[in-house]
Amino acid sequence: MNDPVRSHLLEELSWPEVKAAIDADTVVILPLGAIEQHGHQLPIDTDDYLATRLALAGAEQAGALVAPSPSYGCRSRPGSGGGEQFPGTLSLSGATFIAMVAEVIGGILRHGFRRLLVYSWHMENRGFAYEAAFQASERYPTARIVVMEEPFDSLTDGSMQSLFPNGFPGWPLEHAGVLETSLMLYLRGSVVGRGAPPGDRIEARPYEVLPQPPVSEGQTGVLWESAGAEAEKGRLAYEEIVAKLTAVLVREFGGVS
Amino acid sequence: MNDPVRSHLLEELSWPEVKAAIDADTVVILPLGAIEQHGHQLPIDTDDYLATRLALAGAEQAGALVAPSPSYGCRSRPGSGGGEQFPGTLSLSGATFIAMVAEVIGGILRHGFRRLLVYSWHMENRGFAYEAAFQASERYPTARIVVMEEPFDSLTDGSMQSLFPNGFPGWPLEHAGVLETSLMLYLRGSVVGRGAPPGDRIEARPYEVLPQPPVSEGQTGVLWESAGAEAEKGRLAYEEIVAKLTAVLVREFGGVS
Amino acid sequence: MNDPVRSHLLEELSWPEVKAAIDADTVVILPLGAIEQHGHQLPIDTDDYLATRLALAGAEQAGALVAPSPSYGCRSRPGSGGGEQFPGTLSLSGATFIAMVAEVIGGILRHGFRRLLVYSWHMENRGFAYEAAFQASERYPTARIVVMEEPFDSLTDGSMQSLFPNGFPGWPLEHAGVLETSLMLYLRGSVVGRGAPPGDRIEARPYEVLPQPPVSEGQTGVLWESAGAEAEKGRLAYEEIVAKLTAVLVREFGGVS
Amino acid sequence: MNDPVRSHLLEELSWPEVKAAIDADTVVILPLGAIEQHGHQLPIDTDDYLATRLALAGAEQAGALVAPSPSYGCRSRPGSGGGEQFPGTLSLSGATFIAMVAEVIGGILRHGFRRLLVYSWHMENRGFAYEAAFQASERYPTARIVVMEEPFDSLTDGSMQSLFPNGFPGWPLEHAGVLETSLMLYLRGSVVGRGAPPGDRIEARPYEVLPQPPVSEGQTGVLWESAGAEAEKGRLAYEEIVAKLTAVLVREFGGVS
Amino acid sequence: MNDPVRSHLLEELSWPEVKAAIDADTVVILPLGAIEQHGHQLPIDTDDYLATRLALAGAEQAGALVAPSPSYGCRSRPGSGGGEQFPGTLSLSGATFIAMVAEVIGGILRHGFRRLLVYSWHMENRGFAYEAAFQASERYPTARIVVMEEPFDSLTDGSMQSLFPNGFPGWPLEHAGVLETSLMLYLRGSVVGRGAPPGDRIEARPYEVLPQPPVSEGQTGVLWESAGAEAEKGRLAYEEIVAKLTAVLVREFGGVS
Amino acid sequence: MNDPVRSHLLEELSWPEVKAAIDADTVVILPLGAIEQHGHQLPIDTDDYLATRLALAGAEQAGALVAPSPSYGCRSRPGSGGGEQFPGTLSLSGATFIAMVAEVIGGILRHGFRRLLVYSWHMENRGFAYEAAFQASERYPTARIVVMEEPFDSLTDGSMQSLFPNGFPGWPLEHAGVLETSLMLYLRGSVVGRGAPPGDRIEARPYEVLPQPPVSEGQTGVLWESAGAEAEKGRLAYEEIVAKLTAVLVREFGGVS
Repeated sequence: MNDPVRSHLLEELSWPEVKAAIDADTVVILPLGAIEQHGHQLPIDTDDYLATRLALAGAEQAGALVAPSPSYGCRSRPGSGGGEQFPGTLSLSGATFIAMVAEVIGGILRHGFRRLLVYSWHMENRGFAYEAAFQASERYPTARIVVMEEPFDSLTDGSMQSLFPNGFPGWPLEHAGVLETSLMLYLRGSVVGRGAPPGDRIEARPYEVLPQPPVSEGQTGVLWESAGAEAEKGRLAYEEIVAKLTAVLVREFGGVS
Repeated sequence: MNDPVRSHLLEELSWPEVKAAIDADTVVILPLGAIEQHGHQLPIDTDDYLATRLALAGAEQAGALVAPSPSYGCRSRPGSGGGEQFPGTLSLSGATFIAMVAEVIGGILRHGFRRLLVYSWHMENRGFAYEAAFQASERYPTARIVVMEEPFDSLTDGSMQSLFPNGFPGWPLEHAGVLETSLMLYLRGSVVGRGAPPGDRIEARPYEVLPQPPVSEGQTGVLWESAGAEAEKGRLAYEEIVAKLTAVLVREFGGVS
Repeated sequence: MNDPVRSHLLEELSWPEVKAAIDADTVVILPLGAIEQHGHQLPIDTDDYLATRLALAGAEQAGALVAPSPSYGCRSRPGSGGGEQFPGTLSLSGATFIAMVAEVIGGILRHGFRRLLVYSWHMENRGFAYEAAFQASERYPTARIVVMEEPFDSLTDGSMQSLFPNGFPGWPLEHAGVLETSLMLYLRGSVVGRGAPPGDRIEARPYEVLPQPPVSEGQTGVLWESAGAEAEKGRLAYEEIVAKLTAVLVREFGGVS
Repeated sequence: MNDPVRSHLLEELSWPEVKAAIDADTVVILPLGAIEQHGHQLPIDTDDYLATRLALAGAEQAGALVAPSPSYGCRSRPGSGGGEQFPGTLSLSGATFIAMVAEVIGGILRHGFRRLLVYSWHMENRGFAYEAAFQASERYPTARIVVMEEPFDSLTDGSMQSLFPNGFPGWPLEHAGVLETSLMLYLRGSVVGRGAPPGDRIEARPYEVLPQPPVSEGQTGVLWESAGAEAEKGRLAYEEIVAKLTAVLVREFGGVS
Repeated sequence: MNDPVRSHLLEELSWPEVKAAIDADTVVILPLGAIEQHGHQLPIDTDDYLATRLALAGAEQAGALVAPSPSYGCRSRPGSGGGEQFPGTLSLSGATFIAMVAEVIGGILRHGFRRLLVYSWHMENRGFAYEAAFQASERYPTARIVVMEEPFDSLTDGSMQSLFPNGFPGWPLEHAGVLETSLMLYLRGSVVGRGAPPGDRIEARPYEVLPQPPVSEGQTGVLWESAGAEAEKGRLAYEEIVAKLTAVLVREFGGVS
Repeated sequence: MNDPVRSHLLEELSWPEVKAAIDADTVVILPLGAIEQHGHQLPIDTDDYLATRLALAGAEQAGALVAPSPSYGCRSRPGSGGGEQFPGTLSLSGATFIAMVAEVIGGILRHGFRRLLVYSWHMENRGFAYEAAFQASERYPTARIVVMEEPFDSLTDGSMQSLFPNGFPGWPLEHAGVLETSLMLYLRGSVVGRGAPPGDRIEARPYEVLPQPPVSEGQTGVLWESAGAEAEKGRLAYEEIVAKLTAVLVREFGGVS
């Protein structure tokens, strides 16, 4: 696809450039992440960063634009993100997240964009992101909205084998694990801590308990383990995940812009 | 465990009986379901009915009480429940569902119950049920709350093989499929329609599209297929799922009452 | 009227049956009750049960459907329901009740039902039920909604004399009294406790005091008295109340379906 | 009781005077009314005016203070106030009214007032005023709050006979009728229109219909009739209603300040 | 302009008179103020009173109507109103104020008024009043709404010199100072206290600190000073401020009615 | 002050680093901006970018941390930001912004940070940012919060003269004008467009009109003018504004960490 825009980050455009993008019927991707602990080795904005970086790569491939992420996401759960007790995990209530995202989407569509993809990289946003998009869609029913809430789940069997040679713990426990650490080593290695402890290998449970327990002595925040993370694995995963996003953009929106 | 209560349905008790249950530190289970289309063969209250019936069986085993279900659940999605366009699907917005469930849980804990399990049989309630419990827990931090949002995911490999001899489509597509139809045949066969069309075998997609599409000609509401459903399979699944619930009750609440 | 539907409980229908009911322009009744103490002799779901049972009887007579009750109602007041301090009384805040009911009504009308009757058997829902219906009506202005918030007030002078030979204490104090106990003896005698204490004969006051007082020693929850309740009185009242509902359905909706 | 304050209207005091009133443990009355049509003869602020004037008279008798009314009330209903279609009827949604009143009460209690009476002269505020007070009471549980939602219902049989010699239509239909018109003739005769049409004598119905119907040709807004209203009848009613309020203040708050 | 209405206070009209005003396309002014401490010398309703009185004067000049003020405003800040710790300051939360004002405006426009001016005399309402008007405007887009949030800022240089011969402290600190005290001496001298302490001459700061500090010994609530206030200065300011309002009415609404 | 942290961007820290910062009683700055048109020459994230960059400079000087900005701000107004009709302006409702910011602040304080400065670079956030901080402060009353809502208003007379040699139009009209353009030329010159049209020189008005007017032909979005903007002017302004922020940090929080 051709690529007439100066930047694929909506926020870097001036309003006449935004107007031109609307007139060209450009697709917009809204990334959603979280500010949430990611072990000793990763910064707390990992989800927000990955959502935006992956969205940007897809946007570049498909000639789309990435809207600014609102940074904050839904409450972290012990079984999939460590929970709210870890210092630095900063979350919104469900109702506020829904309202915020619905208004952001509504604002984008109000200006005349008609094709939008919500791209969330934070398990706990699941359902809430959809609800927000649903509300915006009720208000702007002629727009087409695609909601991807689990984009990490797009790797080939070969990649899964390469990333998790000792077995895959399931996505909830893969928080701050091999996939995310590898992606960050590849994309933003300078902020990744080295020599981090191996991980908590917590037991998978089909339920959650409240109140969320305090962080215990020695708990790392890596639910399973990050050992084995490598920049090269990150590169492979990145390319597959971006390719998957691009394919969805093409499939659902056709020639994107 | 002994079982002093006249009924395991909280709603059938008089207030002095509720008071006695509180004094005995009884565990309460709050079932959450939905009013949502379940194909030609099942009634629209299937999720609500199964949530309550399974919770009741667990309560009987563990000496717990089942609080009244508020009947209505979160918005149905095409990829896991058919969507809001099917006649009879009646849902709440996310914010209202959260507020409603948080107030019901808060009410139970306000009276002095200290142990509560939220038992949701409707995929789209996931996250919203937890959010509600989280809010109630913030208000009553000395109570212990367990949130089970995917109780269907508790079958042995043998049972999975028996239920899905031709392959398992994944839980989102198993809506109104072999498991639910079998459970209903076993528990409430009189309302199950016979000779229903086989199912839509829709493609699994890692995203949702909005606006939700209208119901198309011939669409059944069974996302994958219900063929092969049998009361006996329902009985086996029922017993395993109840056993799993009971085990969680015992594990998390010890001698339940 | 003819009666083509398999069940008058909406929840027992499959979605194609709901669709047929919409196509036939069927009237829907939404019962609203409460989970609230009703003395030593009655279960805490008395209001919810009576709302649904009476609505069902009216629906059967008039060829209408009964939507699922959301079970929970507005906060109990000492002067008309005993108050929130009685164990087992579980209520919603006013704002949440309004939102919940407005969304349920809105959902019913969204699918194409055009005639709906809200039937509330719980004094404290008064005003809140109307507010919810008003909001739904603003959204679906072509639908016709009837709101009955005090259906107990429909007895003939003869019945009133028969039920309250020693004088009528007024509806607020008639909570868990002769009328409700008689209705329950007639409709669901197996759950009615025998030998319950006679009642608190509290003084009628033209105001309420907050905070609501704790339940005092010996307080029964029957605000006036339940002595004299009989199944036969319940039958008579039931028939009159159902006849009144049916008359309203016919008057306001004409040939109902 | 002695009466040290310069004015019984809280709004006319300076903050040091308010402080002195708090230190003296003064009772505060919060009047609630509405802006709602009251026929051809009465202004649309009748409810708001009467709530404040009656509260003030009670405050003067009992040494209490009257807080500013927020003027606006809950939605008017055809069966008790004519409805929202009458020009000039300006109402709040239930949720907003609750939040507004709860915050006003909360503000009063936050400063240290410990005794408050909510005095509502508008049938449609019933329940909503209580809900607001309930929420404020949860936040300030050591304060004592009395909620009077139907203060018009405090006349002796003799007065009722004098006001309604041809029969009493019930309070819902007495909107803008003999009682309110007489009170206004006595208290604020200059704004009362003369020669107004007699009234609509609408039929009492045990339900409401939505959408609210438009105002029909010739409809006056007086639900029953205002004929027979006289300033002298207003005086008598005023004195009885104020005496009733004063009695409640004394009964519930003892020596008021 | 001619002036057919009996009163310029909307609240004093009957509904047929309101209807006539709508038919004449009359402009409505909605005054917004606050209940907030105003030093030892002024009552706590000063903002509410001034908003209404000034709006009324403008309405009389321009043939407009003044809607009832809801009395209460947004939270007082130490740097512009003294703050919430002063006894008698009673405020609403931002969200509740927005909802309340949006519903009042919406109600006025719903009846067919098409021209409305929001007139706020309370610095802390700034932004919130606009937000409310914005929401109402979204719902009634054919109406024209003017929002004046700082009407005090309309004096000539000569008047400023006359009022503040020793220098102008800026509007935030002019709370309960020379302007407001002079206006009240002119308009409502009987409630203005004499011999009040001179004022706190607090330092202007470009920020606020939370929690708001308690009222300290000797603090007067006059942020700068009220010395020099005179009725005659009030008259001059009043006339200029009213003239400014009238000019805006004429400019934005043309021949007003 | 010493500066032990690896980064002054909170988001770049791992949770153990955040924990160390809490233990060191570090001050946190929360920047708030907007996504809003800024003429032809500046990107739509100008407010968000400047809020964060200026906060970061202050944090570096004072040893504080900068929390992630939520990017989106309150609705743009024609008189101070151009308004919502400019393509690319994406805003939140007032209530959602308040809730979002209150929850973010609450989250920071929940973890144990006790000193926080809210730093807003977007006029329309004024009042809303304070309201959010007020709510968080009510929940965490032992924390100290400073709210700076107009940090642009901190230049010396000399700088003002240098920036606005032809006269200062006032801050509302200085949107996308000389100050912001100069700051952006200094800090992020690569995204600043050259040869932009000079500006709209709109008239200052003491009110706003709704609905917001559409963008007219030739309207630039620069309310006054950007001519004369230079990177060097930006550097001087930047240093003064940062120095002012640093001074506030030191004054209000003492030795910051």
